[in-house]
Amino acid sequence: MFVVITAVGPDNVGLADPIIHYVTGLGANITEIQMYDHDEEAIFAMFLRIQIEADLYASLRAALTEIGRLKKLSIRVWSAEIRQESPRLAICTTYRPEPALAVLEAIQSGEIEATPAVMIGNRDHCQQLARQFGVDWHSIGGEMGEANDDRMIDLLDEYDIDYVLLARYMRILPASSCWKYAGGRIINLHHGLLPSFPGIRPYHDANEARMLTFGATCHFIVPELDAGNQIIHQETFSVEPGTKIDEIVRIGQEINEPACLVKGLKRVVNREIELHFHRVVARKTS
Amino acid sequence: MFVVITAVGPDNVGLADPIIHYVTGLGANITEIQMYDHDEEAIFAMFLRIQIEADLYASLRAALTEIGRLKKLSIRVWSAEIRQESPRLAICTTYRPEPALAVLEAIQSGEIEATPAVMIGNRDHCQQLARQFGVDWHSIGGEMGEANDDRMIDLLDEYDIDYVLLARYMRILPASSCWKYAGGRIINLHHGLLPSFPGIRPYHDANEARMLTFGATCHFIVPELDAGNQIIHQETFSVEPGTKIDEIVRIGQEINEPACLVKGLKRVVNREIELHFHRVVARKTS
Amino acid sequence: MFVVITAVGPDNVGLADPIIHYVTGLGANITEIQMYDHDEEAIFAMFLRIQIEADLYASLRAALTEIGRLKKLSIRVWSAEIRQESPRLAICTTYRPEPALAVLEAIQSGEIEATPAVMIGNRDHCQQLARQFGVDWHSIGGEMGEANDDRMIDLLDEYDIDYVLLARYMRILPASSCWKYAGGRIINLHHGLLPSFPGIRPYHDANEARMLTFGATCHFIVPELDAGNQIIHQETFSVEPGTKIDEIVRIGQEINEPACLVKGLKRVVNREIELHFHRVVARKTS
Amino acid sequence: MFVVITAVGPDNVGLADPIIHYVTGLGANITEIQMYDHDEEAIFAMFLRIQIEADLYASLRAALTEIGRLKKLSIRVWSAEIRQESPRLAICTTYRPEPALAVLEAIQSGEIEATPAVMIGNRDHCQQLARQFGVDWHSIGGEMGEANDDRMIDLLDEYDIDYVLLARYMRILPASSCWKYAGGRIINLHHGLLPSFPGIRPYHDANEARMLTFGATCHFIVPELDAGNQIIHQETFSVEPGTKIDEIVRIGQEINEPACLVKGLKRVVNREIELHFHRVVARKTS
Repeated sequence: MFVVITAVGPDNVGLADPIIHYVTGLGANITEIQMYDHDEEAIFAMFLRIQIEADLYASLRAALTEIGRLKKLSIRVWSAEIRQESPRLAICTTYRPEPALAVLEAIQSGEIEATPAVMIGNRDHCQQLARQFGVDWHSIGGEMGEANDDRMIDLLDEYDIDYVLLARYMRILPASSCWKYAGGRIINLHHGLLPSFPGIRPYHDANEARMLTFGATCHFIVPELDAGNQIIHQETFSVEPGTKIDEIVRIGQEINEPACLVKGLKRVVNREIELHFHRVVARKTS
Repeated sequence: MFVVITAVGPDNVGLADPIIHYVTGLGANITEIQMYDHDEEAIFAMFLRIQIEADLYASLRAALTEIGRLKKLSIRVWSAEIRQESPRLAICTTYRPEPALAVLEAIQSGEIEATPAVMIGNRDHCQQLARQFGVDWHSIGGEMGEANDDRMIDLLDEYDIDYVLLARYMRILPASSCWKYAGGRIINLHHGLLPSFPGIRPYHDANEARMLTFGATCHFIVPELDAGNQIIHQETFSVEPGTKIDEIVRIGQEINEPACLVKGLKRVVNREIELHFHRVVARKTS
Repeated sequence: MFVVITAVGPDNVGLADPIIHYVTGLGANITEIQMYDHDEEAIFAMFLRIQIEADLYASLRAALTEIGRLKKLSIRVWSAEIRQESPRLAICTTYRPEPALAVLEAIQSGEIEATPAVMIGNRDHCQQLARQFGVDWHSIGGEMGEANDDRMIDLLDEYDIDYVLLARYMRILPASSCWKYAGGRIINLHHGLLPSFPGIRPYHDANEARMLTFGATCHFIVPELDAGNQIIHQETFSVEPGTKIDEIVRIGQEINEPACLVKGLKRVVNREIELHFHRVVARKTS
Repeated sequence: MFVVITAVGPDNVGLADPIIHYVTGLGANITEIQMYDHDEEAIFAMFLRIQIEADLYASLRAALTEIGRLKKLSIRVWSAEIRQESPRLAICTTYRPEPALAVLEAIQSGEIEATPAVMIGNRDHCQQLARQFGVDWHSIGGEMGEANDDRMIDLLDEYDIDYVLLARYMRILPASSCWKYAGGRIINLHHGLLPSFPGIRPYHDANEARMLTFGATCHFIVPELDAGNQIIHQETFSVEPGTKIDEIVRIGQEINEPACLVKGLKRVVNREIELHFHRVVARKTS
């Protein structure tokens, strides 16, 4: 069984040593190990992918949770292989409801086998949508839309979330949040073709570059690394010369983005792909 | 009637003055005028788009041809509105036959209303294709594939060509050739999404950027200006993570590029679009 | 004598024809001619560089001014060769005083032979500096710093300005202003190395790209064209790894930017260089 | 004492586990740990920076060498703090002798305190230079200049090299070589400003972008990561408009590049800086 361990703490030595000692003592095979630091703040993170016997999972999780408590580290243990039921999703939104709606409908219709465990917003625009589909809604936004990032992590933990969907969620997750749910668990929908059109106005940027093709990108969030490397799916549409930017944005938001997110999410939930050393690869199935 | 005049000569004063004198004397309205120089060589060009009464076209063309002869300038007069029959195409190729084949089939099936007047290659790989469709073939390439650019222009003139298709023609046209057929008459097929992926290996470049979307761009060639601004059509396809580059290139070359060129060419031949001050715009129809 | 003519008007035909008729009738040699349109608004511009006998200059200017009045076109006639005294400068500022101060000091010390005819600001931060050097000051800014662009042009005309210095002037000139003073008369100081670091935060962008070299660029403003092509001078400085961004910005603003503008302006005022078809070239002197 | 451990092997599990077991058993503090895989080949690497008591260094090195021998891993143990004498350099060259010459002269004059232990070339152009300074010379190039990369590593090991200088060495090191000498030991001189001008013709690229500033970059090589992040020093020069590319290249090669490499190398040898999680930072000195 493959297990992902993430840990975040205030210094690198105190972070790595207790975890590595325990894991190697358990006889686990380390298949991937990375340490990160934040460029400007004293925050360090470690990412481990290990292979263990399935019956050791529960004790591993308990032991590392205890280490986290004792050493004041934020430690998480997760495996895509442990849950019997369909994976549990958190759908994070700001203004636009279309991508979230498309995901909820795809789940309802059986196209995507997942459980929409919770919806989280830094704005309340999608609260009604959550109610309509009977999904718990939590607002984490302040008056200006600023997000309570710690509250989001608490909710993800509390709802026992497997995958976090940033469905046109318009705030940047802090590095510490990305690290806590690292390993291919945070899925972002970007409304432009990456890596050519990052930024917050990709439709306008592509239009100003005189392109006639516009696109959306579904990708894993990997902290401190260029998003271009973790693309799960890209969906595009072409327009005729002279098409107004308002119409381009409308097609993108109402049709192309939702389709992109649904197809990308399906690939993740069906475990057709996985993150392997910062790259999305087709999962080997024997 | 809108008429395009292009002129190329060895200095700027001798180039502009005689033409402008004649045209303004004729009572033509000048709707666009540009002068270019070559960065390093002493070559200058002028581009004029004017509006005249249709019955003046023949005498304008005759007079400017005579001016060209006397002043040793390379002058061309052309209008998209003069020809009764379908527009005449030159299809230029190097190795890949697929885009040319797609155009020839689209003409044969009536999807594109145009006359394939001549095929020109700097390599002989598409000669058989020309024979198969009964189109005159001319080789302009040397032993190493180097192109005789003057010979190409002579052929375009001789065959009375309206539009030049660079159908995966792998040589760069010199500025003087682009100037001679300026005004939206040279149509290039680039095998990547412009402006993000220029260069000679766009499939590999996009793949190395971890993109899952690949595309082709059909655009007018405008000398000395970034190609991104003159896009006629873009066509894309998406692949699954892990798709090998050979398969990506195969889909691109065999399916996507031909489709892109046919759709773009159709837009030109049907006069849905036109070049307006270096930009492709939807043609106003009253 | 080389003369620059610029014209701006609401349509292309009415703009070009009367001017070209007059100029060619005068027997002038046309050495450069360009027409521009605005991407979205109905504004057209024409740029002409012609060669005439010096004694025709006054009547040319009078005649074209009259044509402008009659046809409701905004026409300007200018030659770098006509003025007996040193060229007249308008220095435009927003917040930062250092580049303007450096220019004023360089003029005072005789390093730059020019007349600081007027200072213009969309913010009042440099008003005191103008007073200190006895230069007329005009504010063209609203409460939010928005600039009255027409007022700026009126001031440039009224003060009979040869060259406009954008000395960390933080507003973008509209295309119509750029066209009216086209031909190498508007000199901008950009606080980053072009074309790599455009935008409004070039120090931060270069720092985030982990560069240890920072720079400033003095360039002519050419409407609708990438600024990279009209560079007059670039000045750089290097820092040690770990240098804080505040210190980098300080060195740039206090030392490097002023030095860059002074050196670039000197090159213009001394007529070492000129714009030739959108390119800065060394002026040929016989 | 800080110690760098690098290991390269054919699979990830067999690579990490024995090393981590030993190191953690020794009571070392792990301050940085990374694992890499090669995109297309089955090569994995691990990088460890640990802190141990200085008197454990010898036994650590012996034990890991033995583990490498037994497990068939390529393991290296190195510390910048262990050597009593000045650090030992390998200077790698292809054609241009200027940067190597500048380094040799700076060592001779005492400006740089280092020992030029060996010179290595894939071409023989700098062999005479090695002889002139009494430095051992080894050719690792084939007839077409192709480099024997394994031979280079053998030489680096054999000559007990601390830092590898790529002094206009024109071959790309394979990832496995970069990994073996990871941790800030391979110093490259690039003849353009990074990250704006990568590639093999940076002078021409900057010139075509109309820049008037040109530069060189001294940086650590970090496998599979963009070089822009590991810049040690950048050195620039500005030219007047109209300067020919040949003159620009000459100034760059003869003056600017050698100066850049000498200043950068000095920073490394004096241990003013170090690599900290893929970033060059000023070394803290207490």
